[in-house]
Amino acid sequence: MSTNGKRPRYEEDSDETEASTPSSNGSVRQPQSNSQGLPSRLEPTIFGIFPTSDFTKQVGDFLYQNIDREYVEIEAKLGRLIDTRTRERIQLDVACETIVSPQRRNLKFESNMTEAQHKHFNEILNNRVVATKPPYQGVPLEYKHIFETDRVYQRNNCKVRVTTNTKTGQIVNGGIVEKVRIAVLNVHSPNTYLDYRITVNSEKPVEMPTGQHVHERNKDRLSYTHQLFKVDLTQVKGPEKSRNVDGTMPPQDLSHELEVEFINPQILIEEKNKLTQQQHNRYVNIVENFLNNIRCLAKEAQIP
Amino acid sequence: MSTNGKRPRYEEDSDETEASTPSSNGSVRQPQSNSQGLPSRLEPTIFGIFPTSDFTKQVGDFLYQNIDREYVEIEAKLGRLIDTRTRERIQLDVACETIVSPQRRNLKFESNMTEAQHKHFNEILNNRVVATKPPYQGVPLEYKHIFETDRVYQRNNCKVRVTTNTKTGQIVNGGIVEKVRIAVLNVHSPNTYLDYRITVNSEKPVEMPTGQHVHERNKDRLSYTHQLFKVDLTQVKGPEKSRNVDGTMPPQDLSHELEVEFINPQILIEEKNKLTQQQHNRYVNIVENFLNNIRCLAKEAQIP
Repeated sequence: MSTNGKRPRYEEDSDETEASTPSSNGSVRQPQSNSQGLPSRLEPTIFGIFPTSDFTKQVGDFLYQNIDREYVEIEAKLGRLIDTRTRERIQLDVACETIVSPQRRNLKFESNMTEAQHKHFNEILNNRVVATKPPYQGVPLEYKHIFETDRVYQRNNCKVRVTTNTKTGQIVNGGIVEKVRIAVLNVHSPNTYLDYRITVNSEKPVEMPTGQHVHERNKDRLSYTHQLFKVDLTQVKGPEKSRNVDGTMPPQDLSHELEVEFINPQILIEEKNKLTQQQHNRYVNIVENFLNNIRCLAKEAQIP
Repeated sequence: MSTNGKRPRYEEDSDETEASTPSSNGSVRQPQSNSQGLPSRLEPTIFGIFPTSDFTKQVGDFLYQNIDREYVEIEAKLGRLIDTRTRERIQLDVACETIVSPQRRNLKFESNMTEAQHKHFNEILNNRVVATKPPYQGVPLEYKHIFETDRVYQRNNCKVRVTTNTKTGQIVNGGIVEKVRIAVLNVHSPNTYLDYRITVNSEKPVEMPTGQHVHERNKDRLSYTHQLFKVDLTQVKGPEKSRNVDGTMPPQDLSHELEVEFINPQILIEEKNKLTQQQHNRYVNIVENFLNNIRCLAKEAQIP
């Protein structure tokens, strides 16, 4: 992440893109000659179309191939892609955000960040909640604070997760699921301090498992919602441990996570189906919206 | 370049992006709640902005740092990035179009393609010329056929290029330049059959050099122009060679090139200056327009 004094800060469009600036000639566009100056409106390309970004297309294809199931979960988590040989962040000879080849070996993803990074995300998200209250004209960012406990049971080859309200101990609505990972896509982002991973899971409701759980996570979560997505900023604690021999308490395992998740994946599946049937659809628009949300967050990651 | 039967073909916006679809409520947008369905309009992100694509930002920064000179040439050439150790196209463990790190070693760029690829580009560009004639409402793609000869002279440490009209032998307007490469940025595109390289050169007018030229290229070029760019599709022949001992003619060196070049780089420099002075500018818009043109062409590259 080189910082160079000569790097400019670009304006970021708050809403409409430059290319769609309405013509000053009214509804009928006049052709503009290939003159020396900058035309008031640039056509998308010589072929008159905007090419779909290759990055977006690959993510779109990945989701297209994996989301079509009843109990699907689609999310993108911030974290770091680690080369398991060096235990350092991966080096790929690339200079921009890129999708890592699924064939890449010796790779793992750590969906974790420092407490200071987590605190910064908390601040900017809370600031945005405040900034989008009335009289703000757009869609507000809303949030709630959730305390939940996940307990994971091993059942045959599957994992069953039971989620309870930490305070009441009651199982939350839809809180018993068999969770299976369907597919992952790793994105390396050398110009931000965090990478991200897009994951498709199946979360099928099942009966309450018997026996003892094998794993426990206590989640202190701020869940922010906006249009199609929720942004979950979570501090995860492991179970309380036994006292040390000297009577002191060992530190609990602690991790900090941030993820962007489709609130209702069925919306994307419906657009996918329209795409398959060659009907007008907003599939790519939604995929880009998903990516732009995780990208805005990745850019905000502070130095660890 | 895996081809997978389950990959969909996305609609490509011919003009305005989905995000800028006008609200059906008229000029004042009503906030839309975070409901279950797909809102008629998706806000750019939870932060209300479109993040500049990291790819575009890196190219924008690269040009920002290199273009500010009087006799600048800015171009993107199609070709193949070759690993000089394997003499094959590079492998980078990435799954989408990406900028190669300037630190990458053992790399060279071949600005060449097969005759069949060249022929296909010729066809689609000619088709577009026809399609953009009246009554087409937009900006026409125009072209001319050029026969020119470049002769390169070595002068101290510099190369001087003298360009003549091949038929008349006359030096073309601005045809004597000292050409110096300022900087290059390599883009690997694993999902298309060709990569591309963005190059910034200085082409300073100089006096006619004396002595003998060291290199000659005969160019048969179709030069297509559209708004800010020209697309040069060129067949390059080396000089005629001496007859073989048996009286036959050896084949001439032949290469096929395609490049997208700023017709007037000063336009980008002016936008850069506005950016530096934090005035409203269209710098990023122009950089994306440049990239989208070379991308549309890269996508059209046929199997070699």
